[in-house]
Amino acid sequence: MKKDKIVIVGAGLCGSLLALRLAQRGHEVSVYESRPDLRKVDISAGRSINLALSDRGFKALRLARVDEKARELCIPMYGRLMHDIEGNTFASSYSGREGEYINSISRQDLNALLLDEAEKHENVSLHFNSKCTHIDIENTIAHFKSYETEEEFAVNATIIFGTDGAGSVLRKSYYLERKFLFSYSQEYLTHGYKELEIPANAEGMHQISKEHLHIWPRGKYMLIALPNLDGSFTVTLFLSYEEGTYNFKNLTTEEAVTEFFETQFPDALALIPSIKDEFFNNPTGALGTVKCSPWMYQNKTLLMGDAAHAIVPFYGQGMNASFEDVAIFDTILDEFEGDWEIVFKKYQERRKKDTDAIADLAVDNYYEMRDHVANPLFKQKRKIEMDLEKNFPKDYYSKYSLVTFNEDIGYNEALEKGRAQDKALLNLIADKEVFTSENMTIEELQIILEKVKEQTNEILQEDKIAGLS
Amino acid sequence: MKKDKIVIVGAGLCGSLLALRLAQRGHEVSVYESRPDLRKVDISAGRSINLALSDRGFKALRLARVDEKARELCIPMYGRLMHDIEGNTFASSYSGREGEYINSISRQDLNALLLDEAEKHENVSLHFNSKCTHIDIENTIAHFKSYETEEEFAVNATIIFGTDGAGSVLRKSYYLERKFLFSYSQEYLTHGYKELEIPANAEGMHQISKEHLHIWPRGKYMLIALPNLDGSFTVTLFLSYEEGTYNFKNLTTEEAVTEFFETQFPDALALIPSIKDEFFNNPTGALGTVKCSPWMYQNKTLLMGDAAHAIVPFYGQGMNASFEDVAIFDTILDEFEGDWEIVFKKYQERRKKDTDAIADLAVDNYYEMRDHVANPLFKQKRKIEMDLEKNFPKDYYSKYSLVTFNEDIGYNEALEKGRAQDKALLNLIADKEVFTSENMTIEELQIILEKVKEQTNEILQEDKIAGLS
Repeated sequence: MKKDKIVIVGAGLCGSLLALRLAQRGHEVSVYESRPDLRKVDISAGRSINLALSDRGFKALRLARVDEKARELCIPMYGRLMHDIEGNTFASSYSGREGEYINSISRQDLNALLLDEAEKHENVSLHFNSKCTHIDIENTIAHFKSYETEEEFAVNATIIFGTDGAGSVLRKSYYLERKFLFSYSQEYLTHGYKELEIPANAEGMHQISKEHLHIWPRGKYMLIALPNLDGSFTVTLFLSYEEGTYNFKNLTTEEAVTEFFETQFPDALALIPSIKDEFFNNPTGALGTVKCSPWMYQNKTLLMGDAAHAIVPFYGQGMNASFEDVAIFDTILDEFEGDWEIVFKKYQERRKKDTDAIADLAVDNYYEMRDHVANPLFKQKRKIEMDLEKNFPKDYYSKYSLVTFNEDIGYNEALEKGRAQDKALLNLIADKEVFTSENMTIEELQIILEKVKEQTNEILQEDKIAGLS
Repeated sequence: MKKDKIVIVGAGLCGSLLALRLAQRGHEVSVYESRPDLRKVDISAGRSINLALSDRGFKALRLARVDEKARELCIPMYGRLMHDIEGNTFASSYSGREGEYINSISRQDLNALLLDEAEKHENVSLHFNSKCTHIDIENTIAHFKSYETEEEFAVNATIIFGTDGAGSVLRKSYYLERKFLFSYSQEYLTHGYKELEIPANAEGMHQISKEHLHIWPRGKYMLIALPNLDGSFTVTLFLSYEEGTYNFKNLTTEEAVTEFFETQFPDALALIPSIKDEFFNNPTGALGTVKCSPWMYQNKTLLMGDAAHAIVPFYGQGMNASFEDVAIFDTILDEFEGDWEIVFKKYQERRKKDTDAIADLAVDNYYEMRDHVANPLFKQKRKIEMDLEKNFPKDYYSKYSLVTFNEDIGYNEALEKGRAQDKALLNLIADKEVFTSENMTIEELQIILEKVKEQTNEILQEDKIAGLS
């Protein structure tokens, strides 16, 4: 066993995978979590919260040899299914290639799996109901309060990892202790979210296609729904706090809520029997992006996962980015293990630009999902991209594919290439230099591919000359 | 007299101009400042700190009818004078038009002028040595501690303005009280700064040209110098904290500092007699950008100036942006006075995109001043732009001119147009589609002007189609 005493604050998805992987590498790891053990208590109060798991997440799970077990919890989603206001639906694949899809998975089931696997290692100890109150970063002492005994206690460590999520106590200690210049941002969207449920039917089956991520895009607000293994769907309403005809501030009566859903989401409303209960009893969540730097303090502490880079959910990459953190950290350990200060520094050097990029991509997608999916230019673009991916599977990757299915390039590379490619294609369509139709020949598509590649490279080159990249 | 009781926290440049202008509009205004009265105590400890005052600042000063008095404190600077490592100098005008220049002005003298003018109004009261400790935003009560009596006291107000600078107590109250979703960012550069002095010569005269802002650009670090009325220059060294061969962390001995200046800034070193004292006794300042939103809480409090949007100094616009805040606020008052909540909301709607823009432009210029001024592409661009401004004074405005000398357009418009224009011109030069030489004919320049305009519009159009603007 290695001699350093490692404390991980937060046993969520990132913390439990990190604990498992460090244990596999022979470290002694103590994990502290403020909530009760989610394997024993149903902490989501009856609601099934699900997330999108994709290739970057799987790559990290594979490293820790838990990918196959995770796969058993997954429901594949092959594309978006858009629902218009009349109840018509339109499918849009995530990729033109075979075998590229994302997965709906229960947060609780996946977290439980990771805790079970971590706990199999005798060098891991898990401590629940232990609320971290403050971290003394200079002396690497974490202070806790037990929710069971109400007692306060302190834990000495060699290294403390803060995987304690968007509201991280370790990050707050960095901010308040002012021992170094700490760049920090928290950026809220004007919209919040609320979770609702489409239950399974009487036979326990899904009432709408479980092979899709469902979207009801309405410009200034939208609903989405992801399937659960029990036949239900978790539905999320994204809506402005204060702006527009309908908002969280003015939807205060059952009549108002009913009118909103009846006029805007009639087909969804028919599937959500407890809408009134859920709308008024479920909390309204905020949507925010957190970035900060540095993530580490000397050779003592490190932020990982949402604690270092919380993002909005619109690219389905929050969990994947946190899992990828663990995979990247592992490659840095392979190279530099033995000097934590160097490990932390190299990790941030390697990783920061990528987590910044996925944060920005996720905000981009917030606008795209709300507004652009109904925009004719974007629809044509999507059609062309599917044709290109299908016919030139090794030569064309849409931005979505670069981000979601190309786990061997970083988010930042995906962002730079993907944005330039989107810009190229949208302008080619707007300038009528490329067309799309139902049955494109391979020769026609080949010409489009060349044009897109040429324009993309030109855009990247022009940005470079202007010092913009 | 209007009946609202207005409290302004912070009697710096923004707070004192705001107090003056609100007093002119008939408001009762109480101003509280943590520092002593700078008209009675020399708080800069013998150092003359100067700033760049330009057209946006003057526009606001004109509104308050103090522009002419301010003009008397100014030293015009018509361009940059670059000093290379061999001691050669190269001038670069700020504009090709007549009468466009920036001004070096003493922070203390200008602040004193504004306090004097404010104090002439019987509806203004000034309170120094009063440190704001906390603001109860719900009840609009500001809490202070007197540095003279050590006593704590509270002031009730109808409205509280926080013009208390980058470390604003009002902004901190927003962040810590969590009464609303507060988007907030503080972003530090990897460089810090240190002020030094070139004294006047024995005759009390400037030792180098006082008509220029002097720059010693060296890639990873630089010196700049601005003239003072007493014949001295305030010199500022911008240097990395930790990176590169020379940095603040390793320049810890007199030998190291001397070697750094002897090899990198020999001509400047010869003019800074007290370099050793100053380097080790003057503080190292941090360079940070602060953005936040919302600036207001209901109809009760408002952040203005650096408290709302601190920026790095590389565009010489910090003070100008804060003064412009007061001018914009005044136009909003003209329209909506009587309902503070609406006034605050409209003010932020109108102003936020512009202060975000100048923050980003200032960071751009940090890289441009350090790196690009020595880049041949940038030098050609600058030469062409001077020729265009000189020959087509009403048709061409460089990004610098748009930001600095076009006070009737907002910073955001200057940013969007200026960046597109820079990108167009740099790419035209790189692609050898435009050339420059010593004596360009008006016909040659006319062709360049048309090309730049066409490319600029195309860039803006392409960005728009891609949803990037």
